[in-house]
Amino acid sequence: MPEPTPGPAPYRPTDRTVPTRSADRASYDRELVHGILDETYLCHLGFIRDGAPVVLPTLYARVGERLYVHGSTGSRPLRMAGDAKDPGLAVCLTVTHVDGLVLARSAFHHSINYRSVVVHGTAHQVTDPDEKRAALDAVVDHVVPGRSLDSRPGNTKELAATAVLRLDLAEVSAKVRTGGPNDEPEDVSLPHWTGVVPVVRGYGTPVPADDLDPAVGLPDYLSVL
Amino acid sequence: MPEPTPGPAPYRPTDRTVPTRSADRASYDRELVHGILDETYLCHLGFIRDGAPVVLPTLYARVGERLYVHGSTGSRPLRMAGDAKDPGLAVCLTVTHVDGLVLARSAFHHSINYRSVVVHGTAHQVTDPDEKRAALDAVVDHVVPGRSLDSRPGNTKELAATAVLRLDLAEVSAKVRTGGPNDEPEDVSLPHWTGVVPVVRGYGTPVPADDLDPAVGLPDYLSVL
Repeated sequence: MPEPTPGPAPYRPTDRTVPTRSADRASYDRELVHGILDETYLCHLGFIRDGAPVVLPTLYARVGERLYVHGSTGSRPLRMAGDAKDPGLAVCLTVTHVDGLVLARSAFHHSINYRSVVVHGTAHQVTDPDEKRAALDAVVDHVVPGRSLDSRPGNTKELAATAVLRLDLAEVSAKVRTGGPNDEPEDVSLPHWTGVVPVVRGYGTPVPADDLDPAVGLPDYLSVL
Repeated sequence: MPEPTPGPAPYRPTDRTVPTRSADRASYDRELVHGILDETYLCHLGFIRDGAPVVLPTLYARVGERLYVHGSTGSRPLRMAGDAKDPGLAVCLTVTHVDGLVLARSAFHHSINYRSVVVHGTAHQVTDPDEKRAALDAVVDHVVPGRSLDSRPGNTKELAATAVLRLDLAEVSAKVRTGGPNDEPEDVSLPHWTGVVPVVRGYGTPVPADDLDPAVGLPDYLSVL
């Protein structure tokens, strides 16, 4: 029988991607990391400003082993990052999915099921116009797959007013908790309900803009969201 | 007619809570901030470790004008914060709700509707046993209202193994985007669907633990989630 095809090599653990606790929940598996990153479009980007930490929510997309973070040229992290000639901006980019509420019989063992990815690295502004345009398309398509082809592309002025940060996927880890509660053996007979409440995400019915021509129907890529 | 009752005073803006862009989306309204914080239980906590930013997802609860962040005594931010005698840990705590995908006719004007709160401040470990116990109950009840009374309270050993950070709500801002796309007038006749796709969150059917006594029914506080 042929050997199973090996998956891509995992990310290499570093001092700051090996957790001090719950190390059994950590993973460096590339496909797991990509899957967590591709399932949503909002990250929390951390950086240092005037010696203090700042965490801002922002849109992003993954293209291969790069993340692109979208922003305005006026936004502080983007201005601080400079372009590829500059030293860049030290960042930590974190993406988290909550999958379930874990209700144990004891307060102490309550938990949540989650999947998170933490990326450490140095971000730079994307200055190459082609890369920038492709990155912005990727961000739009990361939010709504297929949408970039069904919208008016950015013009020169709009591209100039938009900034994109690039962050390579090198120092990366995932952390995952799954499964039910882990109660102490002596608590099993307690009369409290115990189990997992799944957390679900989804989309409601699209609401057309007031000025939408009624002849324009809902595109297929929205009906399958 | 009586004057309307004034709401609580807003948070005082500071250099770092006044955004450099989209300032019209910023708010310091206390009730708005509390509402955003109370609607979920997961925040992203940023701090500085070895000169670099770190952003970790973690559970929290609000009690009045204080946030409590839950962790293990082994976790790095909690150890770094020290207790009330120590200088504490500079943090930025951010909470974000995504409410809708905003699809404009132009790629440039794509956006998301969201509500976020950013809290800057210094976190300390809670060492008073009563405050710690109340904070942990608050975290459990923040995730599932009513649950702390229907679980076995933490014992001395469990309380010792759990750490709680306290962060006062002082330097706080909210940012909110609502409404439809803001297309350019010259784009209105383009043939692209435009509007908002609502993002919805909810819960699935609770899954009992394998060892749950079938005589223990689903509590009311879960059936109303």
